[in-house]
Amino acid sequence: MTIQRIKKLAGLLPQNSDGAIITSDVNRRYFTGVKSSAGVVLCFRDASYLIIDFRYIEHARKCVKSCEVIEQKDLFAQINELIKKHNAKIMSVESKSMSLFDMNTYKTKLNCVLDIGNELSDLILNMRAVKDNTELAAISRAQGIAERALEDVMGRLCAGMSEREFAMLLDFTMLKLGAESISFDTIALFGANTSKPHGEPSEYCLKKGDAILVDFGAVYDGYHSDMTRTFFYGAVCSMSKEIYEITLNAQQAAIKAARAGISGAELDSIARRIIDDAGFGDMFGHSLGHGVGLEIHESPNLAPKSEYILCENNVVTVEPGIYIPSKIGVRIEDFVTITPTGCRNLTAFPKKLTVI
Amino acid sequence: MTIQRIKKLAGLLPQNSDGAIITSDVNRRYFTGVKSSAGVVLCFRDASYLIIDFRYIEHARKCVKSCEVIEQKDLFAQINELIKKHNAKIMSVESKSMSLFDMNTYKTKLNCVLDIGNELSDLILNMRAVKDNTELAAISRAQGIAERALEDVMGRLCAGMSEREFAMLLDFTMLKLGAESISFDTIALFGANTSKPHGEPSEYCLKKGDAILVDFGAVYDGYHSDMTRTFFYGAVCSMSKEIYEITLNAQQAAIKAARAGISGAELDSIARRIIDDAGFGDMFGHSLGHGVGLEIHESPNLAPKSEYILCENNVVTVEPGIYIPSKIGVRIEDFVTITPTGCRNLTAFPKKLTVI
Repeated sequence: MTIQRIKKLAGLLPQNSDGAIITSDVNRRYFTGVKSSAGVVLCFRDASYLIIDFRYIEHARKCVKSCEVIEQKDLFAQINELIKKHNAKIMSVESKSMSLFDMNTYKTKLNCVLDIGNELSDLILNMRAVKDNTELAAISRAQGIAERALEDVMGRLCAGMSEREFAMLLDFTMLKLGAESISFDTIALFGANTSKPHGEPSEYCLKKGDAILVDFGAVYDGYHSDMTRTFFYGAVCSMSKEIYEITLNAQQAAIKAARAGISGAELDSIARRIIDDAGFGDMFGHSLGHGVGLEIHESPNLAPKSEYILCENNVVTVEPGIYIPSKIGVRIEDFVTITPTGCRNLTAFPKKLTVI
Repeated sequence: MTIQRIKKLAGLLPQNSDGAIITSDVNRRYFTGVKSSAGVVLCFRDASYLIIDFRYIEHARKCVKSCEVIEQKDLFAQINELIKKHNAKIMSVESKSMSLFDMNTYKTKLNCVLDIGNELSDLILNMRAVKDNTELAAISRAQGIAERALEDVMGRLCAGMSEREFAMLLDFTMLKLGAESISFDTIALFGANTSKPHGEPSEYCLKKGDAILVDFGAVYDGYHSDMTRTFFYGAVCSMSKEIYEITLNAQQAAIKAARAGISGAELDSIARRIIDDAGFGDMFGHSLGHGVGLEIHESPNLAPKSEYILCENNVVTVEPGIYIPSKIGVRIEDFVTITPTGCRNLTAFPKKLTVI
């Protein structure tokens, strides 16, 4: 699919531009399939190149199909040579990831004009926001691993287990089940710690009556999964039950409404209204969701100001939450693929209120 | 120590600048001690602020000592208010991490002139390149965890274990021993795969006569460790023995020469000359080492063109390698703290040629 992607990019290059210089790790991986911490993709209208250093060259030569692979020796001289070969006058750079410093370096060293507008970055973000079949398969695979891991680890949960132990077990189980890595630092919180939406696992140990909030994911072939569940250990109080049901209602309403044609803001407002109406609006301080793919957070956003109109094969999380400071937090998160008439839920894990 | 750091920054702000806007995750952590994926630090000459969102506010309020903590509501309005309060006309941004897009957004939305030169970024990079005692303690702690983990996992190594299993075991053991996370995707390679300096662990299984190359580290309290060892399983051929001894000689010579006052390029050349003289110069395609701290790669670099003059409390890796394509690679990496007269090796793990 990398060949199709780079061809698509070549066909959609900004109008006055003769080519793209891709320097971000994630976009380099998107267009070449190779994971590396350095390297440059050059995409002209009629040819593409990957310039990559000694450390990755053996692997890149074997695996990259979308670009001609060149070993990096003197990067700017090599880019200039290709610019000359393709008679390029203007080259676009990724304004949304390239630093000011790098932009100045490229400007000084290259024999062409740099297009530093946002068109190239936006074009690639928009391409990546709509997943192809290879990507959807990898995302499903990642989610399958995550769910099997959670099931396994839930079975081993016991009073006295610390948040850190729980998170580590989950991470290790995902890796054992074939994850390339974990999607992000696993959030595993018990009791009052659940009220921190992005809290870090501590040495706090599980005890009866605690809520358990776990937000985590697996990476498979570069693609991330993302899910959150909130459970209760041994008992659940009426307040926790109430906010759980409100959060679940909000989440289910948003999933029901998700479809091609709705905007990120509209979808966010559907969940937010339910939480607002129940009197907990101030306690849902983050947005409803975000795109997921090669990055854990990518386009499109589902947020109060998101004008993005969802379309087929967007993959987005739907994750409302209610957080009562120093008491309890509940978040329920699935992620879904948008279809023309609705969405396909990629998350199969049960979400009915569960007391373990 | 975050208080001292931000005071130092305030005292060293670029001459015409009235303050710094710090937006990168790593520098925000350096100056506040808080790990987050969003937030802005504002450092004026006489006061500092952390503006951070809902997800992190409870934790930040509890932990941050160096800045006044403000919950993010309307970021740019809040920054403008503080700019006005401190009568700031020019604010510096991090040119080496801020994207062009963000710079344009800040330029449009803020009521001040942006200083987009490199002075602020360089100032912070240089501050971070010289570690304080808290940082050195965290780095030592991280290294201790990594070494204990390797010792443990080496004891469990057996024929038939895959590179992936080995890497996972090592990662999990580091986490069990108290690592916050792993420093980077662990490189664990067997046999001919060792010839890829940044290869990825595969399903290849260990067999007699294979080299084993492992490059990995632990993170403790945000600080990374980094080490590489190359072992041999069951037997070692004479060519492997030869390149091992050359690599080790080169590494030991560089460590012996490391001290305050020597440049990165000089140190690199000491190791490189030994490998060159032995006829393997073309097979040592990367630089000798790099700084390590809150990031796995940071200033200073030990590379052929590095003009940085090492000084007390720099922490750098020393990691020469020889890679014979499709045959074998050997890399030996310690990391050291520079002292006025030499260096203190942070890596205690043996490096004599070992056949397991």
